[in-house]
Amino acid sequence: MNGLKEGWFSELSSLWPGISLSLQVNEVLHSEKSDYQDILVLQTKSHGRALILDGIIQCTESDEFAYQEMISFLPLCSHPSPKKVLIVGGGDGGVAREVAKHPDVESIVQVEIDSHVLDVSKKFLPFMGAGLTNPKLTLHVGDGFRFMAQHRHEFDVIITDSSDPVGPAVCLFQQSYFESMREALKPGGIVCSQAGTVWANIDIVAQTFQHCHQTFRKASFAYAAVPTYPTGQIGFVLGSLSPETNFKEPLRIFSETELDSFNMNYYSAEVHRAAFILPRFARKALDEIVSNVTDEANTGDR
Amino acid sequence: MNGLKEGWFSELSSLWPGISLSLQVNEVLHSEKSDYQDILVLQTKSHGRALILDGIIQCTESDEFAYQEMISFLPLCSHPSPKKVLIVGGGDGGVAREVAKHPDVESIVQVEIDSHVLDVSKKFLPFMGAGLTNPKLTLHVGDGFRFMAQHRHEFDVIITDSSDPVGPAVCLFQQSYFESMREALKPGGIVCSQAGTVWANIDIVAQTFQHCHQTFRKASFAYAAVPTYPTGQIGFVLGSLSPETNFKEPLRIFSETELDSFNMNYYSAEVHRAAFILPRFARKALDEIVSNVTDEANTGDR
Repeated sequence: MNGLKEGWFSELSSLWPGISLSLQVNEVLHSEKSDYQDILVLQTKSHGRALILDGIIQCTESDEFAYQEMISFLPLCSHPSPKKVLIVGGGDGGVAREVAKHPDVESIVQVEIDSHVLDVSKKFLPFMGAGLTNPKLTLHVGDGFRFMAQHRHEFDVIITDSSDPVGPAVCLFQQSYFESMREALKPGGIVCSQAGTVWANIDIVAQTFQHCHQTFRKASFAYAAVPTYPTGQIGFVLGSLSPETNFKEPLRIFSETELDSFNMNYYSAEVHRAAFILPRFARKALDEIVSNVTDEANTGDR
Repeated sequence: MNGLKEGWFSELSSLWPGISLSLQVNEVLHSEKSDYQDILVLQTKSHGRALILDGIIQCTESDEFAYQEMISFLPLCSHPSPKKVLIVGGGDGGVAREVAKHPDVESIVQVEIDSHVLDVSKKFLPFMGAGLTNPKLTLHVGDGFRFMAQHRHEFDVIITDSSDPVGPAVCLFQQSYFESMREALKPGGIVCSQAGTVWANIDIVAQTFQHCHQTFRKASFAYAAVPTYPTGQIGFVLGSLSPETNFKEPLRIFSETELDSFNMNYYSAEVHRAAFILPRFARKALDEIVSNVTDEANTGDR
């Protein structure tokens, strides 16, 4: 019954008890303990290179495109003119790589707290790390929360590409973080944050969505299929300062030729629309939050 | 790096090399070798009971609803009047449970080759096994291929709920099987078959889709998220004898009240539509097949 032998990496977390994904490993390319986390880079047998932080798979070469394309283009294509973008986290460089593709984006600022992740990605994960040297990008090593407090009303879009809400990233899932993002946005600005999976942690997803819904004029939840993430998918909460935003209908629709030229393997306008359609149990859970928040607003409790 | 200890079940297959899902096991409820396969029933720590055939997870109590609802309601809601339904395989009873919910369905015939799976499901997996005693259902133990040869033009919908295309189920993924289904259908009939995952086996998916496309007037591919299946999702090929079928737009749309009364946790009309929207890389692979088959037909090669 226990098929796994030496030579497999197994991912275990209290966020998804009783289930574990394992990847067969050909070689450990790098292993270190930075000031913030354990950093591990594996050459896997079938999924290319993999970045592991504190024992959790952050991305594999085989499917990282799905996550990076979606966390970037869902908010970018929901904004009428996304010129200046802030990325919080995203140390592997994959989100910067995607954001830079959007022709309206003129400048990208990225704030990553762990310089070792940046170095490791540039050295061992060039398919993502190359994003960190894009000419549109200005890279800061530091705390995203603090950075935003010093840069008010500067950004059209803020993307938070964080690890999961255990340990150092917990603060990025709290209401105060969403308020901090709101203050760093220009009028009409949009945020998009990694938000876990409705299949393992619907309570956490619902709480994060509630924070977003309470902070922004419009809020929505979408997901992308990512086979090497827990439950095979990951969610995103999106918030907008503009009451006119309709996240489910992209404002910017790229042609097939444009998408080909961007080397897009997951995102398209129809994928954008479908990403907001949730299984019934999940939609009901999130609809309940919207309804409760609206009730509170209407009765003056908020 | 190897986090898994005794007490975990690990799923390994040549269909998805280098990756393995593991479930923590509280108790082995049943283990036997039938004439056709190894049958294992586990009480898992976090995913309820699980049915394992030849080492591959067939369903867990936590997420089987997604698969069963979708493989049943995608074809049923694409047919104008699905009165008589054939289920090939589906020995756990979950598909029969779902098909019986559709108010137009008057009779269901199910042909399962392994009587031991039926017995095990009734005894250990009552949440699915109860479907096998539905008054609409007539159950046959035998070979689906042979059964269809003896029952021509009888069914409105044929659902093939098989294991994966290794070992005994290989024949259910071949062109001759799709031709056999075609002959067992009434005019305007529709089929839906389990068809693997575009993330691990796009070649097999494409081949199965091609068989379906070459055999039926209309063919399409959809998927459902199922966290405990490889890559977290599973695909379905659908074929129709009617040129008017548009799989992406359900003919029968149930109200929220009806869906509640059916205890539906995954399926809705909007989920139906979104299930046909594929990531770009997958859509391109399948579009290429449609284009090639159409070219062959136009030049008389077919």
